[in-house]
Amino acid sequence: MNRHELTEQIVLARLARGLSWQQLADAVGRPLVWTTSALLGQQPVPAELGAVLVEMLGLDASAVPVLAAPPMRGGLPSAVPTDPTIYRFYEALQVYGGALKELIHEQFGDGIMSAINFSVDLHKKPHPSGDRVVVTFDGKFLPYQWVSAEDG
Amino acid sequence: MNRHELTEQIVLARLARGLSWQQLADAVGRPLVWTTSALLGQQPVPAELGAVLVEMLGLDASAVPVLAAPPMRGGLPSAVPTDPTIYRFYEALQVYGGALKELIHEQFGDGIMSAINFSVDLHKKPHPSGDRVVVTFDGKFLPYQWVSAEDG
Amino acid sequence: MNRHELTEQIVLARLARGLSWQQLADAVGRPLVWTTSALLGQQPVPAELGAVLVEMLGLDASAVPVLAAPPMRGGLPSAVPTDPTIYRFYEALQVYGGALKELIHEQFGDGIMSAINFSVDLHKKPHPSGDRVVVTFDGKFLPYQWVSAEDG
Amino acid sequence: MNRHELTEQIVLARLARGLSWQQLADAVGRPLVWTTSALLGQQPVPAELGAVLVEMLGLDASAVPVLAAPPMRGGLPSAVPTDPTIYRFYEALQVYGGALKELIHEQFGDGIMSAINFSVDLHKKPHPSGDRVVVTFDGKFLPYQWVSAEDG
Amino acid sequence: MNRHELTEQIVLARLARGLSWQQLADAVGRPLVWTTSALLGQQPVPAELGAVLVEMLGLDASAVPVLAAPPMRGGLPSAVPTDPTIYRFYEALQVYGGALKELIHEQFGDGIMSAINFSVDLHKKPHPSGDRVVVTFDGKFLPYQWVSAEDG
Amino acid sequence: MNRHELTEQIVLARLARGLSWQQLADAVGRPLVWTTSALLGQQPVPAELGAVLVEMLGLDASAVPVLAAPPMRGGLPSAVPTDPTIYRFYEALQVYGGALKELIHEQFGDGIMSAINFSVDLHKKPHPSGDRVVVTFDGKFLPYQWVSAEDG
Amino acid sequence: MNRHELTEQIVLARLARGLSWQQLADAVGRPLVWTTSALLGQQPVPAELGAVLVEMLGLDASAVPVLAAPPMRGGLPSAVPTDPTIYRFYEALQVYGGALKELIHEQFGDGIMSAINFSVDLHKKPHPSGDRVVVTFDGKFLPYQWVSAEDG
Amino acid sequence: MNRHELTEQIVLARLARGLSWQQLADAVGRPLVWTTSALLGQQPVPAELGAVLVEMLGLDASAVPVLAAPPMRGGLPSAVPTDPTIYRFYEALQVYGGALKELIHEQFGDGIMSAINFSVDLHKKPHPSGDRVVVTFDGKFLPYQWVSAEDG
Amino acid sequence: MNRHELTEQIVLARLARGLSWQQLADAVGRPLVWTTSALLGQQPVPAELGAVLVEMLGLDASAVPVLAAPPMRGGLPSAVPTDPTIYRFYEALQVYGGALKELIHEQFGDGIMSAINFSVDLHKKPHPSGDRVVVTFDGKFLPYQWVSAEDG
Amino acid sequence: MNRHELTEQIVLARLARGLSWQQLADAVGRPLVWTTSALLGQQPVPAELGAVLVEMLGLDASAVPVLAAPPMRGGLPSAVPTDPTIYRFYEALQVYGGALKELIHEQFGDGIMSAINFSVDLHKKPHPSGDRVVVTFDGKFLPYQWVSAEDG
Repeated sequence: MNRHELTEQIVLARLARGLSWQQLADAVGRPLVWTTSALLGQQPVPAELGAVLVEMLGLDASAVPVLAAPPMRGGLPSAVPTDPTIYRFYEALQVYGGALKELIHEQFGDGIMSAINFSVDLHKKPHPSGDRVVVTFDGKFLPYQWVSAEDG
Repeated sequence: MNRHELTEQIVLARLARGLSWQQLADAVGRPLVWTTSALLGQQPVPAELGAVLVEMLGLDASAVPVLAAPPMRGGLPSAVPTDPTIYRFYEALQVYGGALKELIHEQFGDGIMSAINFSVDLHKKPHPSGDRVVVTFDGKFLPYQWVSAEDG
Repeated sequence: MNRHELTEQIVLARLARGLSWQQLADAVGRPLVWTTSALLGQQPVPAELGAVLVEMLGLDASAVPVLAAPPMRGGLPSAVPTDPTIYRFYEALQVYGGALKELIHEQFGDGIMSAINFSVDLHKKPHPSGDRVVVTFDGKFLPYQWVSAEDG
Repeated sequence: MNRHELTEQIVLARLARGLSWQQLADAVGRPLVWTTSALLGQQPVPAELGAVLVEMLGLDASAVPVLAAPPMRGGLPSAVPTDPTIYRFYEALQVYGGALKELIHEQFGDGIMSAINFSVDLHKKPHPSGDRVVVTFDGKFLPYQWVSAEDG
Repeated sequence: MNRHELTEQIVLARLARGLSWQQLADAVGRPLVWTTSALLGQQPVPAELGAVLVEMLGLDASAVPVLAAPPMRGGLPSAVPTDPTIYRFYEALQVYGGALKELIHEQFGDGIMSAINFSVDLHKKPHPSGDRVVVTFDGKFLPYQWVSAEDG
Repeated sequence: MNRHELTEQIVLARLARGLSWQQLADAVGRPLVWTTSALLGQQPVPAELGAVLVEMLGLDASAVPVLAAPPMRGGLPSAVPTDPTIYRFYEALQVYGGALKELIHEQFGDGIMSAINFSVDLHKKPHPSGDRVVVTFDGKFLPYQWVSAEDG
Repeated sequence: MNRHELTEQIVLARLARGLSWQQLADAVGRPLVWTTSALLGQQPVPAELGAVLVEMLGLDASAVPVLAAPPMRGGLPSAVPTDPTIYRFYEALQVYGGALKELIHEQFGDGIMSAINFSVDLHKKPHPSGDRVVVTFDGKFLPYQWVSAEDG
Repeated sequence: MNRHELTEQIVLARLARGLSWQQLADAVGRPLVWTTSALLGQQPVPAELGAVLVEMLGLDASAVPVLAAPPMRGGLPSAVPTDPTIYRFYEALQVYGGALKELIHEQFGDGIMSAINFSVDLHKKPHPSGDRVVVTFDGKFLPYQWVSAEDG
Repeated sequence: MNRHELTEQIVLARLARGLSWQQLADAVGRPLVWTTSALLGQQPVPAELGAVLVEMLGLDASAVPVLAAPPMRGGLPSAVPTDPTIYRFYEALQVYGGALKELIHEQFGDGIMSAINFSVDLHKKPHPSGDRVVVTFDGKFLPYQWVSAEDG
Repeated sequence: MNRHELTEQIVLARLARGLSWQQLADAVGRPLVWTTSALLGQQPVPAELGAVLVEMLGLDASAVPVLAAPPMRGGLPSAVPTDPTIYRFYEALQVYGGALKELIHEQFGDGIMSAINFSVDLHKKPHPSGDRVVVTFDGKFLPYQWVSAEDG
């Protein structure tokens, strides 16, 4: 069973057992978004945590080393996502992506927000006009630097 | 001069005059990300604000009503962005998009984060291992609701 | 059995049992378009309704929690649909989409018709020159609003 | 000046002169959605109406025969629209397109809703939870019929 | 077995049994192109005809209701066909499609050739320089008409 | 002025001068579909005919050798056409293309309908239920033949 | 087993049995490139030859009629091939395709090299600087001719 | 004037002056296919040859260094060519590309036909059934070799 | 089991057995990058090495000839890779590809770096600011040369 | 003049003035690959260096601030490059990209080679069998780290 098939099995086992993502994250003591992303096939799961999750979900123990390997990342079924809940994030990039680029350059200089030294947080925040989904992308600023191993 | 050509002219005029996005936002008293996005062709600019910006950037006054019209939004030059600074946000969706969807559903129920009743914030935050780019997407939760005008 | 496989099974079971979409909608007391869309894999089906439908269609009870989860939405097999009955709606967007955008802005201001707080209705209406398919898209107007959880 | 360039000029002239789409439609006595779609390059405009519009918009009279020719239709800048106001209609097809197909077949038989013998209507309807955009697609049902000129 | 799998089975059963498309069309008394298209998954097959075909091809009777449902049409494996025999028709559109559009407008006015009220005929015609494939597309002219159910 | 720009000029000149495609075809004594296709940039126009057309359309004489060169063919603005009048032919291929292939093979053997030794005809044919557009694709059958110059 | 599955089986059986393409071609007495192309799913294989090949490869006799049917041609797994050995031919078209078109027109007139009345030859030719792959595409010139069955 | 614009100018100047590709190739004493490809923007033209061609075509002398630079190669306007004369070569790859790969491997081993140490030849060859276009791709065989500069 | 399925099995067997790529490369005495690429389906594996690897990984001996055949190369699941670790190499091409082309031409003349007579090396190099991934692409320069077998 | 137009002008001015990339790099004292990439529009050029380059190339001084702004990066004209010199790098990713990913993970752990803290080097290295192009990608290893500004 490859990682993709394993992800499908995890998705179904979670529903069948009525487990929440929060319960799964709590069981391994890792951040919620990270754990969910990992179980959806986007992060390697250290073997000791994988063993816990495999147990909770009733999967075969042979899944543990498969979960532990760095996966081929990229979880969108198409380049432009069709699911409305995911699409809104893509839409935000269409509308605000250029501005985010300009402002990163204005405030930090030429460089990027790392998506590797990075965390994502999602919170429900109350508001008089209705609860809000607040998602924070938090990445280290990496300046363009022309460094070579020879310089070291 | 259509909106697209106007955006190109704004980009060049800003560089030629050495104005920062912050200065432009301050001049109109609007949020920084919004103002930048608007000047990049993604938001309508109310005429009274447009007049101020057009003056600062040395553009023709005929640009004001063009800026004031809701634009054809969508600022990425290709469906998958090639610019690394923008790409990292797309990459974050590839890796965390599925998890964000699952957690919005777990915490709020079936629905989406609005990208319309929405704001984006970008901050520089210090950290021992290097400054961080912190971007917050903050949108109203909209539950799937089967409503019809007839019910009203 | 994942949601996609389940949808295929539903489609075949409905034909084999000779059930109409109307009968299925009536059995759960939900709107016809919504129920059809849900059985085609585009809406979560509350467990108590799912149990009824699974029974009628002769599916396994294990399908109930799968039906109850918010699905990965997006039911077109290709970005541009090839089926003529569906294509005509896409064609209408090619021809009238720009006009709908302009008129929403003229009558409501800058914003969108929600596709979440939304319903769709389909009726057969008689006409001297032949029956007409009348489809109503009915969504709440959402104005672009720059709101943040911090303002609340 | 070809039709595409003419459409760009119309869009800018309308903004410069502060004319609403409604005023333009009223001037020619044609339906609002049709007139807007036509001025956006999607319908031929009969010469006598074209003359009125060209006059109102301050365009050159040579535009009249260009407006009168059936245009190369298709107004979306990309196969999947990026503008949020237009995208929501595309999203509705992703979520409800399959259901609309099934229900057209259940209620009318095998066939389509014509997008040629067709009209589109857009209304603002009040609702306790906020105004609604109500868009009606109204097309003649066309059954699949295997007809040949030889049969006539 | 869904319609797609059923089509594959029909294709193989026809070859295994050495049946011609003409024999299959004759057996149900329907036009040749229509019958072939239907067996390739592009038309619903009325149950009484489906029963005959299923029998001839040695398929399971459970295929009859699947064949009877209006299928998700669109039989090309890719948007631009790769098979030379099919590609030539696509090439003809690349070379003559614009001309056909102009001439339909010149001879009939603004509108289309229906692909629904439509038949296709294919004949072998002798010619001194070699036999010719003569394919006739015969569709009702549908003028663009702005009709609404309310007018009826 | 390259062929593409020339085609644009022809399209506009024809409208400005109120010439029909039929008049242009009659002037050069060539078939209507061919002439229209040629003027839309899809066929080389022999210099003596080009001179007549250039004169009628009021173009510069330098256009004659450009028209006379075999053009880079392919007149659809996108791989899948968006214009409804042209799209219906593409749709016909999606629905009937597989059947045409099978029947060419059944009636002629393995091979194709040539799109080079080929003509297209378009007629208006009356029918009790409304005029019909009858388009004939007429191409020489070319059998797959493994021939080499060495065999000659 | 459809043709695609059959091709996969042929590919594996050839390797397992250690047969060369040349041996297979010799066994049926057909040209090498043709036989290889046919076994890769791109040509119909006459039943008497199919029987020989099926025997040599240890396949089931039911494969014979499947091999004998004209296949859905098109053997590249993606529109732009990724395999380097195949890609070089595509690259040659990118670099020399335009020149080949111009020279066919200059030497033969308006028309094409047939890919149907056609053969392909591949030879190893020695050269002081290293052996060369010499591939010859040899197709009948087909002039554009506006012929109709009615003229015959 | 960049290389692309220069190519357009060359194409038009050649037609205006009635020069054949052969005359241009003869003038510089280079192979016909190479010269044509070079003038279509796919090869650098050494300055001394460029001077001759620029003179013959009546272009500005400033074109010489532009012609002399290695160009950004790739002359097909779309990934899959639409022009029939060029398309036939692409079609040949769809049908015979897999076989060519297999036979290169069988006769030479693992490797490719170089498209760099390479020549293309085009000849008209007579044949009883009609003249043939014979195109030869002639490239050095390059075996996959794992070589490193360190080994030297 | 075709090569693609075999690659999947190798990937899983390696994880299950806890073998490193280095151990596998050492076992066959071949370079590390080459061996990894080969086991991921991108190189033919000589039978004597294949036998060793199949043994170590616990696969069926029938895999040996499948591994020994030159594979259909191209290991990216999509034209633009989504996995961040692989994407960075693609991004480097977007940013530095044009410069590499220019400098190859400036230092070597018109031609390419071979990807066939080629090796890839990957090293970890220490650096005061953190370990570095140093990847070397090392290919023979191939000048554009118009050579023909006839010249030999 | 926007950055894209400026790049085109730089490319032509360099050829017209006969300047090498090396000369341009030497003039500003920056690495060769970086300078070439910057002049091709992929890096911001600090104003003092920009002034030198603009002078050498004979461009207008207004280009200096445009060069100084971080550009919209991404220099390939299409997602899959067509130019052979650039394509070989893409091909190397198709063949070795998966292996590079696996080995980065094996030697460094889960993470990436940075393309931001990064340098590229290109050398000509002699070899008995012909000069070699040796390109080194040298990027800091970035481990996946779940860091948040809040932790700081």
